[in-house]
Amino acid sequence: MALGKDYAFQDCSLARALEVVGERWTLLIIRDALYGVRRFSDFQARLDIPKAVLSARLQTLLEAGVLAKEGHEYALTSMGRELWPVVHTLGRWGERHLDSETCRIFLHAACGERLDIDGSCPSCGTPVPPEDVELRAGPGAVREDPVSRYLESPHRLLEPIRVS
Amino acid sequence: MALGKDYAFQDCSLARALEVVGERWTLLIIRDALYGVRRFSDFQARLDIPKAVLSARLQTLLEAGVLAKEGHEYALTSMGRELWPVVHTLGRWGERHLDSETCRIFLHAACGERLDIDGSCPSCGTPVPPEDVELRAGPGAVREDPVSRYLESPHRLLEPIRVS
Repeated sequence: MALGKDYAFQDCSLARALEVVGERWTLLIIRDALYGVRRFSDFQARLDIPKAVLSARLQTLLEAGVLAKEGHEYALTSMGRELWPVVHTLGRWGERHLDSETCRIFLHAACGERLDIDGSCPSCGTPVPPEDVELRAGPGAVREDPVSRYLESPHRLLEPIRVS
Repeated sequence: MALGKDYAFQDCSLARALEVVGERWTLLIIRDALYGVRRFSDFQARLDIPKAVLSARLQTLLEAGVLAKEGHEYALTSMGRELWPVVHTLGRWGERHLDSETCRIFLHAACGERLDIDGSCPSCGTPVPPEDVELRAGPGAVREDPVSRYLESPHRLLEPIRVS
């Protein structure tokens, strides 16, 4: 590991955060956990990574308190759910500047309005917590693994997905 | 490169965003650029990384349009400045859950209120763009490089810093 995982001499809470969520694939695991994925096999279906890498990332997230084990499942803690604005804002930034097609659309479930980039509802004017967000597939969603197929139907964030 | 840099089979704008900002050190470079750092030597003073790594990261950010060259300096584009909410929210998450001491405090320059976690001003009620944010050092700021010392005094985000 030429570059290591920590940022020992950075006196900065962003560096501390990146020590937990900054490794390759980790924010995509958190994305899927926000979508409702909880099983190892379902994370694996969505992410094309070796089991050993997925295990190591999940272990880091468990140790940091972002995920908690519930039986054989991995569930986001409240600390983990607080990463929703980061995942949403960074995804929308990517969509706006780097993407051609929208893959996921996030709506305020209560009123059906599409969330603003900052995660608030333009109609109700308040930040929408993830449990009140409805996820829909956009035209850019093309993966065909079982979890992605399940997500072709509208789905509430954090509502458990168990497909494989 | 066992894990590569792209996420080729992820049909997701978050994956596209992470291809640009997800490499190790990159978000810390963007953090410093938001603070006003523009010179290669000043980025180097703040980050303890080899020149080759810093060069490669800056090159990726130039190619993606996050940074633009202005003479010998690196300046954030509007696309780059839009990463402020991500940097702020993730840093505040780290402060809240992983840090003992606050290293940076972000105030709405117009009224002196500390920003909410979502980057808005609790007194004015609106999201505060980075150019209206005043940065102050907190008790956890202990680095002694020239840029960090400069940032011990209150400083407006994006206002150029040139110290080395």
